[in-house]
Formats: sequence, C-alpha cells, structure tokens
Amino acid sequence: MQRTIIYLLFSWLIIPAYGSEPITQLLTSAKHGIHLDSWQLSHNDVKFESKFPWSIRKYTLHGGKQEGVDIIEVDNGSLKFTIVPTRGMGILKAELDGMQLGWNSPVKEVVHPQFINLQERAGLGWLDGFNEWIVRCGIEFMGHPGKDNFITNVGNKAEMPLTLHGKIANIPASEVEILIDQEPPHLIRIRGIVYERMFYGPKFKLWTEISTTPGSNSLRMDDKITNQGGFDQEFEILYHVNFGPPLLEEGAQFVGAIKEVFPFNAHAAKYINHYKIYEDPVLGFIEQVYCMHPYADDNKMTQIMIQNKAANRALSMTFSVDQLPIVNLWKNTSSLEEGYVTGLEPGTSFPYNRRIERKFGRVPILKGGESRDFTIEFMGLINKDEVAIANKHIKSIQKGRKTRVKTAPPEID
Amino acid sequence: MQRTIIYLLFSWLIIPAYGSEPITQLLTSAKHGIHLDSWQLSHNDVKFESKFPWSIRKYTLHGGKQEGVDIIEVDNGSLKFTIVPTRGMGILKAELDGMQLGWNSPVKEVVHPQFINLQERAGLGWLDGFNEWIVRCGIEFMGHPGKDNFITNVGNKAEMPLTLHGKIANIPASEVEILIDQEPPHLIRIRGIVYERMFYGPKFKLWTEISTTPGSNSLRMDDKITNQGGFDQEFEILYHVNFGPPLLEEGAQFVGAIKEVFPFNAHAAKYINHYKIYEDPVLGFIEQVYCMHPYADDNKMTQIMIQNKAANRALSMTFSVDQLPIVNLWKNTSSLEEGYVTGLEPGTSFPYNRRIERKFGRVPILKGGESRDFTIEFMGLINKDEVAIANKHIKSIQKGRKTRVKTAPPEID
Amino acid sequence: MQRTIIYLLFSWLIIPAYGSEPITQLLTSAKHGIHLDSWQLSHNDVKFESKFPWSIRKYTLHGGKQEGVDIIEVDNGSLKFTIVPTRGMGILKAELDGMQLGWNSPVKEVVHPQFINLQERAGLGWLDGFNEWIVRCGIEFMGHPGKDNFITNVGNKAEMPLTLHGKIANIPASEVEILIDQEPPHLIRIRGIVYERMFYGPKFKLWTEISTTPGSNSLRMDDKITNQGGFDQEFEILYHVNFGPPLLEEGAQFVGAIKEVFPFNAHAAKYINHYKIYEDPVLGFIEQVYCMHPYADDNKMTQIMIQNKAANRALSMTFSVDQLPIVNLWKNTSSLEEGYVTGLEPGTSFPYNRRIERKFGRVPILKGGESRDFTIEFMGLINKDEVAIANKHIKSIQKGRKTRVKTAPPEID
Repeated sequence: MQRTIIYLLFSWLIIPAYGSEPITQLLTSAKHGIHLDSWQLSHNDVKFESKFPWSIRKYTLHGGKQEGVDIIEVDNGSLKFTIVPTRGMGILKAELDGMQLGWNSPVKEVVHPQFINLQERAGLGWLDGFNEWIVRCGIEFMGHPGKDNFITNVGNKAEMPLTLHGKIANIPASEVEILIDQEPPHLIRIRGIVYERMFYGPKFKLWTEISTTPGSNSLRMDDKITNQGGFDQEFEILYHVNFGPPLLEEGAQFVGAIKEVFPFNAHAAKYINHYKIYEDPVLGFIEQVYCMHPYADDNKMTQIMIQNKAANRALSMTFSVDQLPIVNLWKNTSSLEEGYVTGLEPGTSFPYNRRIERKFGRVPILKGGESRDFTIEFMGLINKDEVAIANKHIKSIQKGRKTRVKTAPPEID
Repeated sequence: MQRTIIYLLFSWLIIPAYGSEPITQLLTSAKHGIHLDSWQLSHNDVKFESKFPWSIRKYTLHGGKQEGVDIIEVDNGSLKFTIVPTRGMGILKAELDGMQLGWNSPVKEVVHPQFINLQERAGLGWLDGFNEWIVRCGIEFMGHPGKDNFITNVGNKAEMPLTLHGKIANIPASEVEILIDQEPPHLIRIRGIVYERMFYGPKFKLWTEISTTPGSNSLRMDDKITNQGGFDQEFEILYHVNFGPPLLEEGAQFVGAIKEVFPFNAHAAKYINHYKIYEDPVLGFIEQVYCMHPYADDNKMTQIMIQNKAANRALSMTFSVDQLPIVNLWKNTSSLEEGYVTGLEPGTSFPYNRRIERKFGRVPILKGGESRDFTIEFMGLINKDEVAIANKHIKSIQKGRKTRVKTAPPEID
Repeated sequence: MQRTIIYLLFSWLIIPAYGSEPITQLLTSAKHGIHLDSWQLSHNDVKFESKFPWSIRKYTLHGGKQEGVDIIEVDNGSLKFTIVPTRGMGILKAELDGMQLGWNSPVKEVVHPQFINLQERAGLGWLDGFNEWIVRCGIEFMGHPGKDNFITNVGNKAEMPLTLHGKIANIPASEVEILIDQEPPHLIRIRGIVYERMFYGPKFKLWTEISTTPGSNSLRMDDKITNQGGFDQEFEILYHVNFGPPLLEEGAQFVGAIKEVFPFNAHAAKYINHYKIYEDPVLGFIEQVYCMHPYADDNKMTQIMIQNKAANRALSMTFSVDQLPIVNLWKNTSSLEEGYVTGLEPGTSFPYNRRIERKFGRVPILKGGESRDFTIEFMGLINKDEVAIANKHIKSIQKGRKTRVKTAPPEID
C-alpha cells in the first residue's frame, strides 16, 4: 500500500521526457505490488503537441457487484473506449463521434469476478457478467458448457464440466501499462497481461496491446497467447464482439467474404436463407448461430462488417484467417430488455463444446513455450462513402467466388 | 476512489436543510461510483428536536471472512437493528430495550459473498453465511437444493441444480440511501436496491425500505420486487425470520391465526400435535418444519408471533396474506453450539424445491415490467399487557374458525 | 476504516514496554474490526538488544489474483519465511542463509481466495492457488476429490462431492497477532486463528502459532484444532510440505525411520524400490505417492528429512506420531515449468478420498468442545555435519528395526 501511494503521487507529477521514448505509466503490477486507484493524462498534460485532443483516465468502480473494478477510459478525440483490466482486459463499450459501437446488456454493472461463479446454472455463470462490447472467450476452452475429457495428474482420462466461454474474461489482469508515443502520430497503447494458469493444468499467458491513434476511427487489438507450461496444450479463442443499436436494427446486415456457412443447429437452419439480415427486436426470439469460414486476400487477410440499414454506419473488423480461421455469427435480436444484440466473432473454433470442436479438428495446440499472435483491427465507419469503400473491399476479397451454404447443421454427436 | 473521498468528507459537513424534505445521505451507489467506508448521524447532529435519541452509524467490517462488509446500525432509542447491505440488505440482529430479538448462530462472522460458494456441499453453501435475524430467501428460487428445469437460451428445457434458498442474500446492494424526516415523528428509512439479474436469465430488482420511528418498538420492511426482463418470470420469496433466546425457550410458543397446517415431512409429522410449542435445546434435535396457511382479517391482514414461556416477551409480524399467503415454521431447537433457533417465515411459497412448489401451484409469476410489493411490520413486545393484546388480536383474526391439521406430509414426488 | 487508520498510526509509534511481557501487535482482528495494511518492526526498533538482527514486515499484495492478500515476512537473521494469513496461515516460502527451502510453482501469484472456486475442474480448483512451501490440507476433509456421504440437517445420509484437500488453505485468518519476547532468546511468534465453520456442518477453530528464535535455523508450527460444535466431528489434517531445488535434485533422498510403506496406486507400485530416491526433472513424470507409517522414539517422536545429493543440505521435520501417525511422500519430479517438486507430508490420514480413509479407520473424530494439538519442528541443515547428525538421529529412531515394504497398493474399493 505504501508503494502504491508513492506511485500514485508520482503519477500526478509525471513529467514526460522528450525524445523517442514513449511516455509510460504502470497502473497495475502483481510483480511490483502496484495497483493505482486512479490516474489520468491528456494532451494538456504533455509537452508534445497533438493535432487531436486525447485523454486516458483510470478509475475504480464502487457499489454492488462492481466494487473494486478497474476501468480505463481512452478518448482519442474521435473514438472513445473503455477497457476493463479486472475482467480480463475486455472492452466494455465504445463510441465513435457519439455513436455507440457496443450494445445495451441487461447486465448493467461491470461485475467483479469475485461475484461470478462460472459453474452456476449448469455452467452458465459467465452470463452473470456478460455486457462487454468485446469479450474474449477461452483460453483453455470456450463454447457451450458440458462435459469433456481431460488428463489428470496421474495420467488418467477424467471428465470435467466445461463452463460457458471459459475463464479468461473473469481473471483480473496482473500487469497493466499505458504507453503514449511522443513522436507523431502519438500512438496510445494499453498493455495488459492476464494469466490463466494452475498446477496440473494449463499455463497460459495472454499478453494484449490495445492501441489507437489520436483522431482515428480505429483501434487495434494485438494478443499473444503463450503456453508457459511444458506440455502440448489445447486452446481456443473466440473474440465475442457484440453490437446493438444503432448499428443493429431492422434491415442491418452482416457483410463478409464468406466461403462457407452452416447453421449451428436445427433452429438456425430454418433461417439460413436470411442469415445476413437482421430484424427488429422480438421478445422470445431464439438465438440463431451461423458458422462461417471466410475467404481471404492474397495476404490471408479478411474483413467482416456490420452495417446499418441505410448503409451509412458500420463497424468493420480486419484479421488474418491464418490466425482466426472461423467467424461465428450470433443473432440474438430479442427484446431490448432481454438484450437486442448480435455477435460477430472471429476465432480459432466454433462455440460448440470443446469435445465437439476437437472431433472436427478445430482445437489448436500450443507446444510448451510456444506463442501464437492474434490481431484484429476494428474500424468505425460513419458515412455512406466509408461504408461503400468497405463493402467494395470485402467484395474484392470474395472475388466473385461462391459461398457454399449448407442448409443443415452438422451431425455433432 | 477520489470521488469516494470527496463524498466522505462531504458527509462530515452535512448541514441538514430545514423544511419538509427529509435529510438524505447516499451511502453506496453503483450508478454514481460511491461507496462510503463510514458515516454517522444522530439526534445531536441535526437541527430538529426529537423526543427520543436516535443514531445511525455506517461502518465497514475487517478481518477474516468479513473483510469489506458494510454495516448500518440504526438505534431509534428503544429498538436497535443492524442492516447488512453487502448481504442483500438483510438484518443481522436487533434488540429492543436490551432484549435480543435474533439468535446466536454458530456462524459468528458476517460473511462477505466473495467467500460464499452457493454450490458447495451439494448446494448447501448458503449455510456458510447464515446468521441473520431476517434474511430473504429467493428471488429466482428458494427452498431445498436439488435439480429443477429451466428454459435455456435456445428454448430448450434443461436442468440446473438449485442451491439452498437462492442468491439474493449473497448479492451486495447496488444503491443504499438513508432518509430521516425532519417533520415528526422523524421516520428513519434505510433504502437499498439489490439486483439479481443475468443475461439469458431472470432480471429482478429488489427495492427495499426498512423504516422505524424514534422511540418505537417496531420496524417495517417494504420490499418491491420488479421483473425488469421481458418474459414472464417465476419467482419465490420467503422471509426467514429467526429467533433464539430469550424469546425462544422451553415453553415458548408460536401464535398465529392458522387455517391449515401440515408437516413438511414424515419426521415433522411425528410431532405435529405440539407444533406450536418449543422445547429446551437438545443436541441432535432434527429440524421440524410446519407449513401453514394463515387466516386473515377483512383487510387480508394477518399476524403471527413468537412469545416466551411467561408470555411477557414476544415478537409479532403483521402482513397481508394477499402478498404472503404462507407461513413456514422452522423449529431447530438443537444445542446452543449448533444453533438453538426457530424461524417464523412468511412467504409466497413453502421451502420445498421449486419443482415441487411449481407442481402445487405455489410459484408465482411476474410479467415483464411487473412489480409486487411485500410489507411486514415487526413489533417487539416486552411486557404481559402488550403480549396479551397481540394474542387477543390474533384470536380476533382466527374468529373461532377451525385450524385444519393434516397429520401426514403431502406426497411430493 | 477509521479504526484501522488509528491502529495503523499507532503501530508506527509503538514503544515496547520493558519487562517480561512480550511485545504484541494485533495485525488483523475480525472481533475488533482491525486489519492493518502494513506494519513492521525490527531489532532496531526495540529497546532490548539481540545478538542477531531480526525483522518482521507485514504488507499487502496488489494486482491480478493477489489483490488484497496479506503477507507477513519474518527474518530471524538466518531463516526467512513468509506467512500468508489470507490463505489460511500457510507458509508461502522460506530460505535459510540464502538457500530456498520451498519450491517454484507454476502458480506465481499468491492467489486470494476470492479467485478460487474449489469445485472447478471436477473438484480440483485448489490447484489454482497451490504454491506454498507449507500448506495445510483439511480440516473437514482432505485428499482426492470425489463423492462421500455426509449427514444432512434432517438426519439423512446424503452425498456431497469432496474437493481436493479441503477448504482450510483458502480461508482468510480472522485473528492475526505478533509477539516478540523481550527476554532472551527473544522468541518471535506469529499467531493466527482460522475458522472453518458453518450452520448444519463442522465448526472448526484452527489456532496456530508459528515461532522462531533470532539466529536459529528452525521454525516451529503449533496448531490446535478445536471442534466448537456439539457433535462428534470427523476431521483430517495433512501438512503438505513441498520442496524443489536445491534440496530436490537428482540423487536427493527422503530419509525417515519407516515401519511400513506402501504405494498409493499401481503406478507408484512400479517404482516402490526406489521410493526414497529422487531423479532429475522429466516432463510427463506422473506423480508417485508412497504411504508410510514411521517408527518413533520412546517419546513417540519421529523425524523425517529431505537431503540433497551431496548430503550437505537438508530440511528435517520432527513431530509426534501420536499426533501425526502417517507420512505421505509425494514425488512429482516433472519439468521445471510444470513443477519439479516433492512433498513430505505428515498427517492424520493418507490423501485418499475421505470415504476410503474412513473405511481404513484413518479419519479421527473430535468430540464436541474437544481439541487436538499438532506440533512440527522444521530445521534447515546447511552443511555435511548437520546432515550427518540428523541421519544418525533418524537411524537411532529406526533402531535397526525393519521397514515393511508392501509392493502392491491396497484394495481401496
């Protein structure tokens, strides 16, 4: 605590040095026993000049289930977004020039992991805290709850109940750091490290860097997952990126260069012909999930997007199909109270239980010491021209190639 | 934290305004990021005069499993009681002119929900923190653990293990506020809001106001449960109000205007003839539970009471049978170390597992947006006259009507 | 919080009184609402002179899963060790004249119980926080997870899933106190109380005193377990004392006066002939567990030890076989990343599931109000002579008596 206080005071006195070194500020460090309650910095506090105003504010939530939750608000002048270190470095919400990019979850508080029991409700406890714009599912497993095998410490196969979407979103970051380049374009980076590790089990390190440039309409997420154990280790990651109004509305569309799509289950199969089109909120709407393999350009890059009805607002995501070979589309256009939301979800795997994904060969493995990188560029588009350009680009990836539409779900058991 | 500190300082400088507006003090607000560590106010601090001394003190517990637990002590000059916002706005204990109204649980600490795992011990984890005078059981479900069906997000029936007495008692309040009327009789109100909500699940808001008047022997609990979701939603609530010595003793009695009583199970059936009478502590006493439907007066109000052997001390509870149609009587006169205690429990339902209560039509439903109110008036009686008056009133409700005593438990499976 | 701050200030002004009374400092008290963030005292701060420099430092960890964890570092001038009140008064690590006595767990953070779910991973959640040098397993049960019977509140037999190694290591201490004798040899004592109790369940009080003398190479753990309930209560305790390099290495040995040893399972049976000898780290090494009954001297005392290959470094443990009749040897010489570690584990019981231990009559019972004491003396040895003396002493306990080596595991089901 002493140390914390010293750093806290220090943070108010920060005098950024000139030169090529970025301004850095450690906010949390399990290694060094540091955890700042609050901190802030803006274009007014630094010696370099920025064409765009920007600010970073760290504070702590209080009250109810959000007691003690760390929040980092980044405003690049155009794009504002809120990172939650306490919830695995997810991104709670974002807005671009006042337009919400996320959604309105019925879960209003930013729930501290101490109040989450993932095993609750037959493995659905994750839903007690689900309200992020971008939330990572994984890393040891993700997808639907249900039993799967694992190898115990004595080398035996045993069963454990997997819980919905895994543990990573409910682990607090051990290290959190801010970096601001003093050189133009003054890149702002928020770095975090989250460990999902145990004895006789997986030993993952998630390193993430979430970055943006003052004045820009985009942010970038660079993740590196490392297996710090000695054994080959299965893993899964899915970026659950969620949208509500105004991007989601009747007539809004999913846009992507799609090689193949199949319905997750029999229910989704009924609506496969309209899988790209969204409808108005309907109480009692049952989720429809579509599993896709995207096409990519010559550099293995692909782009997916949600655009509103008028095609003058959109959010696009660009990533490598080598890193993230699948896209899962979650349509949950239920009533506003229940959560009117869709998820565009690039991942290594589909959200079936891991035992099914394994059967289909979609559970990758990291050797001991091995790392894998995942980068997604998120871009908000707020006029017809920008949306048209993105559509054109996605078309150029599709290159007139066919989309194979499977109308029946796979046999999974 | 900054904000918290500011509010904390402010709270010491509070200058109550004259007039008809009550003095108000926000103690906790998830909405505004407020959480006061400590605060107090008494008749000495305000400008209006009170015939009775009173005080309200908010502080925070430390050490062991009670680290960080919020406590609000209210003393109205005669009646003292302690509210625990961190444990769902339950009432830990109370005393009237020095007489304990609650009980002595073997659980001595006020356990923070972070140390409770409701799923422990085959669904009995709730018992790790059970020591309140008044604790709410519910809201999605309450009663005995065991499997019940629920509807999953894909519209399928699935099973989940219900845990003993539900979640609400282990959820911290999101909003807590104190109000003191400047006008006589200077009503003191403690308001709280507790949310039991999740995605793909129930979305309950519990609003509660616990109030008392300086110098009085009573407190009142006004609860409003709202279904903030869109769907029809089952719910259950049971007010688990618990008594030990001195009210509970050999020869103490339960008093109520009872229409029907049946034993919870075969064990209780053996003792149905003495269901109203209490005995001395007996190590190894096995709980006896009696399920009752009370009679009511013309205004649908009923009254129940526990009185000591000499009938010169009692605690009565008055409520509407429209709101709370059942009374559950829990007799657990085990040894002092194990917990010598009885519960007088008005509720919407009996404490069988919800799947049984549903079968018997005792699980009410709230439509989307709908609310239901529950009010209980608790009154401590400390002399023969007061107890006699209460007995007379209960007799007047019974109006000579018969109590139907079923000697066998219902067939529940 | 106020109270905390007052005590905190007071602690900096401490003026030890002369005389025979030890200097005492309360660090945590649930009873008195006290919890100090930081505190320290050393030979420089007191009026008595010590031949050896010593210091005690209490601080709080921050960041990641160790947010809010209390740490007490004791340095007696030769021996340094770190107690974790938040994790049941376990000892995280120790070193003697710079030699590590503990091990290097892949779990790097000192995990706060709020982030542990013991039921996770089919009852293996305990492994999420396992990195202590000395960790107690128990008290209601310990050993392998799996179903066992218990008696419910209604007197029925029911099943509950026991979780690995029980709850005690993940319960924060309710009372923590430091005592330093002003009289030579200036014994330093750290006392703690941890409660494992619930309604309708066990009511254990663990009182512990961990003590050392400035300049010495030893520390002593005095535990007292009390059944504060009224019923006869089964209990189990196992001291899981763990070693890595440099004590553990190829050629290191377990040394003890052993009456009988048997392999825990068929896998261990294969290596029973080498059960005392350790090997180099091998990725994929499957744990080998050996169950032993030690011989004792005329005072019922026995000694066990791990010594390095050169027999010039060792750690010995001395205890009464009346208190701790069994020794469990856990060999887990896996790779360094996965955890190269062995456990020398005195206990009341072997780490089979409690239902098996009960069958073999190895689950002791405490009557209501009854206590049992457990004392272990830990001694670090850092040269050939000291190690030789200990070997000689262990030989004198064995007195040439035979070790009965069972080559097959017991039939347990």
